[in-house]
Amino acid sequence: MKKSQFVIIGLGRFGSSLAKELVELGYEVLGVDKDEEAVQDLSQVLTHAVVAEATDEDVLRSIGVRNFDCGVVAIGDDIQASILTTILLKDMGVKKVVAKAMTELHGRVLEKIGVDRVVYPERDMGIRVAHQLVSPNLLDYIELSKDYTIAELTVPRCLNGKSLQELNPRGRFGCSIVAINKPQGVIIAPVATEVLAEKDVMVIIGTNEGIEQFEDTIIR
Amino acid sequence: MKKSQFVIIGLGRFGSSLAKELVELGYEVLGVDKDEEAVQDLSQVLTHAVVAEATDEDVLRSIGVRNFDCGVVAIGDDIQASILTTILLKDMGVKKVVAKAMTELHGRVLEKIGVDRVVYPERDMGIRVAHQLVSPNLLDYIELSKDYTIAELTVPRCLNGKSLQELNPRGRFGCSIVAINKPQGVIIAPVATEVLAEKDVMVIIGTNEGIEQFEDTIIR
Amino acid sequence: MKKSQFVIIGLGRFGSSLAKELVELGYEVLGVDKDEEAVQDLSQVLTHAVVAEATDEDVLRSIGVRNFDCGVVAIGDDIQASILTTILLKDMGVKKVVAKAMTELHGRVLEKIGVDRVVYPERDMGIRVAHQLVSPNLLDYIELSKDYTIAELTVPRCLNGKSLQELNPRGRFGCSIVAINKPQGVIIAPVATEVLAEKDVMVIIGTNEGIEQFEDTIIR
Amino acid sequence: MKKSQFVIIGLGRFGSSLAKELVELGYEVLGVDKDEEAVQDLSQVLTHAVVAEATDEDVLRSIGVRNFDCGVVAIGDDIQASILTTILLKDMGVKKVVAKAMTELHGRVLEKIGVDRVVYPERDMGIRVAHQLVSPNLLDYIELSKDYTIAELTVPRCLNGKSLQELNPRGRFGCSIVAINKPQGVIIAPVATEVLAEKDVMVIIGTNEGIEQFEDTIIR
Amino acid sequence: MKKSQFVIIGLGRFGSSLAKELVELGYEVLGVDKDEEAVQDLSQVLTHAVVAEATDEDVLRSIGVRNFDCGVVAIGDDIQASILTTILLKDMGVKKVVAKAMTELHGRVLEKIGVDRVVYPERDMGIRVAHQLVSPNLLDYIELSKDYTIAELTVPRCLNGKSLQELNPRGRFGCSIVAINKPQGVIIAPVATEVLAEKDVMVIIGTNEGIEQFEDTIIR
Amino acid sequence: MKKSQFVIIGLGRFGSSLAKELVELGYEVLGVDKDEEAVQDLSQVLTHAVVAEATDEDVLRSIGVRNFDCGVVAIGDDIQASILTTILLKDMGVKKVVAKAMTELHGRVLEKIGVDRVVYPERDMGIRVAHQLVSPNLLDYIELSKDYTIAELTVPRCLNGKSLQELNPRGRFGCSIVAINKPQGVIIAPVATEVLAEKDVMVIIGTNEGIEQFEDTIIR
Amino acid sequence: MKKSQFVIIGLGRFGSSLAKELVELGYEVLGVDKDEEAVQDLSQVLTHAVVAEATDEDVLRSIGVRNFDCGVVAIGDDIQASILTTILLKDMGVKKVVAKAMTELHGRVLEKIGVDRVVYPERDMGIRVAHQLVSPNLLDYIELSKDYTIAELTVPRCLNGKSLQELNPRGRFGCSIVAINKPQGVIIAPVATEVLAEKDVMVIIGTNEGIEQFEDTIIR
Amino acid sequence: MKKSQFVIIGLGRFGSSLAKELVELGYEVLGVDKDEEAVQDLSQVLTHAVVAEATDEDVLRSIGVRNFDCGVVAIGDDIQASILTTILLKDMGVKKVVAKAMTELHGRVLEKIGVDRVVYPERDMGIRVAHQLVSPNLLDYIELSKDYTIAELTVPRCLNGKSLQELNPRGRFGCSIVAINKPQGVIIAPVATEVLAEKDVMVIIGTNEGIEQFEDTIIR
Repeated sequence: MKKSQFVIIGLGRFGSSLAKELVELGYEVLGVDKDEEAVQDLSQVLTHAVVAEATDEDVLRSIGVRNFDCGVVAIGDDIQASILTTILLKDMGVKKVVAKAMTELHGRVLEKIGVDRVVYPERDMGIRVAHQLVSPNLLDYIELSKDYTIAELTVPRCLNGKSLQELNPRGRFGCSIVAINKPQGVIIAPVATEVLAEKDVMVIIGTNEGIEQFEDTIIR
Repeated sequence: MKKSQFVIIGLGRFGSSLAKELVELGYEVLGVDKDEEAVQDLSQVLTHAVVAEATDEDVLRSIGVRNFDCGVVAIGDDIQASILTTILLKDMGVKKVVAKAMTELHGRVLEKIGVDRVVYPERDMGIRVAHQLVSPNLLDYIELSKDYTIAELTVPRCLNGKSLQELNPRGRFGCSIVAINKPQGVIIAPVATEVLAEKDVMVIIGTNEGIEQFEDTIIR
Repeated sequence: MKKSQFVIIGLGRFGSSLAKELVELGYEVLGVDKDEEAVQDLSQVLTHAVVAEATDEDVLRSIGVRNFDCGVVAIGDDIQASILTTILLKDMGVKKVVAKAMTELHGRVLEKIGVDRVVYPERDMGIRVAHQLVSPNLLDYIELSKDYTIAELTVPRCLNGKSLQELNPRGRFGCSIVAINKPQGVIIAPVATEVLAEKDVMVIIGTNEGIEQFEDTIIR
Repeated sequence: MKKSQFVIIGLGRFGSSLAKELVELGYEVLGVDKDEEAVQDLSQVLTHAVVAEATDEDVLRSIGVRNFDCGVVAIGDDIQASILTTILLKDMGVKKVVAKAMTELHGRVLEKIGVDRVVYPERDMGIRVAHQLVSPNLLDYIELSKDYTIAELTVPRCLNGKSLQELNPRGRFGCSIVAINKPQGVIIAPVATEVLAEKDVMVIIGTNEGIEQFEDTIIR
Repeated sequence: MKKSQFVIIGLGRFGSSLAKELVELGYEVLGVDKDEEAVQDLSQVLTHAVVAEATDEDVLRSIGVRNFDCGVVAIGDDIQASILTTILLKDMGVKKVVAKAMTELHGRVLEKIGVDRVVYPERDMGIRVAHQLVSPNLLDYIELSKDYTIAELTVPRCLNGKSLQELNPRGRFGCSIVAINKPQGVIIAPVATEVLAEKDVMVIIGTNEGIEQFEDTIIR
Repeated sequence: MKKSQFVIIGLGRFGSSLAKELVELGYEVLGVDKDEEAVQDLSQVLTHAVVAEATDEDVLRSIGVRNFDCGVVAIGDDIQASILTTILLKDMGVKKVVAKAMTELHGRVLEKIGVDRVVYPERDMGIRVAHQLVSPNLLDYIELSKDYTIAELTVPRCLNGKSLQELNPRGRFGCSIVAINKPQGVIIAPVATEVLAEKDVMVIIGTNEGIEQFEDTIIR
Repeated sequence: MKKSQFVIIGLGRFGSSLAKELVELGYEVLGVDKDEEAVQDLSQVLTHAVVAEATDEDVLRSIGVRNFDCGVVAIGDDIQASILTTILLKDMGVKKVVAKAMTELHGRVLEKIGVDRVVYPERDMGIRVAHQLVSPNLLDYIELSKDYTIAELTVPRCLNGKSLQELNPRGRFGCSIVAINKPQGVIIAPVATEVLAEKDVMVIIGTNEGIEQFEDTIIR
Repeated sequence: MKKSQFVIIGLGRFGSSLAKELVELGYEVLGVDKDEEAVQDLSQVLTHAVVAEATDEDVLRSIGVRNFDCGVVAIGDDIQASILTTILLKDMGVKKVVAKAMTELHGRVLEKIGVDRVVYPERDMGIRVAHQLVSPNLLDYIELSKDYTIAELTVPRCLNGKSLQELNPRGRFGCSIVAINKPQGVIIAPVATEVLAEKDVMVIIGTNEGIEQFEDTIIR
């Protein structure tokens, strides 16, 4: 299967990070920004990088935007440019268009004009950091549903040397430890006799309430 | 145990999202911004919100910043203000200071002046979105180690009606499905006879390579 | 039948002219502009006029925009404000929304977000003036179809004293004179013996080609 | 007869629309603007287009402005430039000078310095749109005199299948239907047995009052 | 006879100097400027001084501009404001309107819109200073005609003790000394035996050529 | 005697007028301005004209400013540049330096740093125009002393056909008519039987009071 | 003797430091700045501090500037304001006026208009720091004449325990150690048997050359 | 011993003065500024001078900053640039980094990120000038300790012809005169019979109190 090709419009902090990661993952990426310096900074990294005004239809046509499978409108602070560029990408036939929204109202316009996905990087990251701040051992997490979460937690000193069966998270909180990352390697689906060490990282699945109780009672 | 209190300086997109989530999680939050409009927008939501210039030591003292357990410097685009505010918070004795960095160099300064954690919201979100773009079924993921990942994937149509033992991810790719989110509820540690339905969401743990093969071979 | 009520957002040259004419025609009009001077200039003329930032949902709600039958977004030069205001009016349930577009691309966005009618005042007026410049006797015209036009023409000196049957526009050019505006009054469907005088104004219907020949052959 | 040649100064929305329509009508047009981008956008369409500062007498002389039959000063927002350019065109001997006025006071100055015609595109278009908004079936109209109007109206559903003699606009409202635009073609001076269909467009002449009553009583 | 009343619009260097001199000469003067500081600086000196935007017809009306015998538009650097204010003064019926022009083109517009006199302070003063620079003894002069001048000259050291008949300007250069300003007082139509002293000032009438020769031969 | 050479710094309205008049009077003039357009406008007229920053000592040296007999600092609106340029000209040995002052305080500084003459074009012209406005027949005047004036007056209609002895200005007002400009030519020291005609221009010397009475009693 | 009173105009980094030190030394100081924040920051420290525009004669008069013994014009970056304020202080009779110059040319103007002392803080400090950078033990110094210097030097480790007679600076380099600052106190005119300790500070007088050799040979 | 090489970043008043003095003292200096004019002004004086943006790591690397023994960050008014440049110099391995601080808070950040010395030129110079203002004979001074000072004082008229033993500063004030600068040369450690002359300069060491009394009693 032919690999997707991406055009990223707007090479600010979000756009450039996205573009570089896509290249790292092995994809072809064309970066576009109206600021020459932004383009130059990435010209070594991306497959192609051009200085262009993305709200000009002729410009987008001349750089062959229509041939890309996916366009990302990552324009930083100019709502008008974001909207006009997005509608141009859709009208020119880019199959999938993802756009970064600055405000909720901006997001609504993007959806109305047919964008495939709206992302709110700062808002989402704000939420994620909030969770990490209130649970000092929380490294990362996935919200499985309104009630269930997968949490990646550092093992605190007080659990050093404890086996899973001693902890008994399933019995006490309805939570299940599904992986442990130890210096020697990752153990998937660890057995009950597995022993935790300080600084290990464990992955736990359960209800929000269960995980919270687990953190409060045992860990702190 | 007394709950932590947070002071968030800078109520832009990242700062305000973080502040609102902390309130939602049940914590007391003081929001500070020099822009009156930004403060007014959040005054209903946060515990307290004040208009203040955070690079002025007297101002920070007068709003009692030293009494907070954790300070977050979420200033948007002014590196100088970010640095000066951070050093003031540290010098005034705020126990934990987290700061948002705009560039890698900014981050280095923040670390040198003693910040407890530096966050790069746009950069991190760029990386996260990149992964989602290249794996259309990928909803979210946690990088467990350099080699292991937990991925949350939508079940595609082609797997509709398949049981886990038919799929046999462990046998074929060394991956383990540790949870399935179905309309009826989340199943933790599903049994081998469990049957997938289109639109279910499954959580899989394995090596990056194994998960990639799983996605490529079976799903697409 | 209850008369429609109008809210006009943007009181520049187009918006204020539109608002004043609606009042003249006997309708209630609320004028909105963020510029205090623009509002003050019309406060004597309009039913209501308020200074407000129309891209702020709360503001629009507080002035009761949803109760109006028709909203006109006549914002002058700020494409972003035009788009955001338009989507707010639609989302708040204003039945009919008309918006002024600055460029063709702007117009496309307005249509995508559901505006009921897009107007291009300067573009349309440019076309209209062009026609008047090339036909010095042409006062006004309506394009009936791609081929047919109704034209309002001044009677030139050379036609002074000529009767319609002498001119015979129907026989020679397939055009029909349907009205003559004379100092004494307007004659609708004039008879063939009616005599033209210099400075009378006649209304003629026919094909574009026929009217052009009529103008070229007889008048000049 | 030699065709007129036009010089259009100011290639904004009004000026460029005017210039393009004149070219479409078969005339030679020189477009002038001090903004390079505006000139470039039209350079393919117009006979000639030059970047020039129109308030500089030497510049106007060097581009041979005096040889044009008609000059249009379509400068957008700079009243001073509009006035100075206009007086230069008149002094250099351009036979006919038309100028766009921004305000009524601006128009007065233009007339004093000898302009042949002053146009107010936004004001006139505001009036025109106002009429269309209050008569939903009104497509276009010409004001014949203070009392008489020619209106182009869409035939509403309720008149579908009605013949002109049934409607009897002349008997009831003193109005005369002088043309009907049907999918098959335009019928000029239709006979009384002609039958209307929904979506046909009819042209009606009469007093303002008569047409208004016709619209109110029958159509709505 | 009732004394004239003056309204001076624009209180810059030229306007304020003019206004103050008129007051000194015993006339009533209303000063108008849009800059509050300029008005305040003169409020002690002038009969009245108001802060007002002189391009606004209502404003001019409310300060009763029409009742003044003479209006001076001394606006400094804004050609548009100068033109618009001038036409308003004329339209409102101010009997005599004098306006300061910045450029020759500006002056032409002012004349076309009916100003009674155009003044060019900087241009005229430049010419005057040029003459003084090239004739070091020249204090002031009046150009009587293309050929004749009245010059006010300092008596140089070399003429000290000379009588008019020794000098004999009439016989040698066709010039006539019509007055001498001595420390004791001004002597009008001095007799031939009158003796000059260094630092006296003499007034001489003659042809430009004659005065130039007088200066060159005798004085230097 | 070698003719003086002038360097004029600042080619605004005053400076360019001064420079052009000096050229007209037959002198060599170097014009200097930092604005390229101002220099280009005068490059045809002046002996030399250069674009240069006159506050830079090296620049002034490289254009050989020290070789000029007289320097005029006619800088428009930048007091700092005016002062710095003036001190540089003095320090570099320009024999005579004349400078234009914007305010009285500016003038004081210029005198302190050794300028040979300070001119206030707008202030002086304001005074001159004031006198002309209050005496409608006054064309020009020289102030001989605090008490004596020479005035150039238009002969009004009421004096048409009157001889000087009928007028008897000397007997009645102590004033002396020293010249009359008639269409046929200028008459110096006219005899008592000379007859005035309307539109002639007469030159009168006398006390301010006498001339004022002459104007009031006879002329008006 | 009555103590001098100081008025400091300009409360930037230099002016505020100067003002505070004068207060510390027991003098009365009036601080003046046009920036409200600058004034407020010092209002607790200085005897008086007012917000005022120092180039306005009336303002200076109203704050009684003429009653001060010494005025310091410490205006930061506005050469024009510095010059105008200085001449006002001198003209109003302030006995001693000291002014900070930004450039050498600025300094020349200040001297011409009669300032009593010109200071160049950044230039002088640049020179001072240069000397300290090249002599790592040099703490401070006074240039006594072109050839002689007093230097304050840290005693380096290699001189620990050495007596002055061992060092013999007078015999070897013609330099004299006139004071030693030891933890126990300062010894003035130390005897030859006095012993140095690391970290002591010694004051040495001699020729530049002698001190340099002393530093090079013994210390390093 | 190899001489140190210096890189000075920021060539404003302080930086350029520092750089020029170092060159004068015989050291190699590379000057860096982002302003081309600043660099050009010093290009003749410094060993090397380059236009560069010092907050860009690649730029600093390309000009070989790491090879310098000492870097001085003398950036004028941009705290952010000062901090970022400083951390880059430290990270790149420059042995000694000195930085100019604008405020005390700025200084604290510089110290935290590891700068070797922070200088406050304007603050220090303000203090120094304050001392000179209150002691009119004080030319310069060194603060030896909290209590002891070395002062360089002009000999006033009243001490003319007095010998040191007459003055007896040591007996009366505990102060010692360690040098006298006379027109004939500097006398180090003058004998008691040495006689002072007006305008001589003497160097005195003593307690602050002693020197103050010496100044008050004898000199004034």
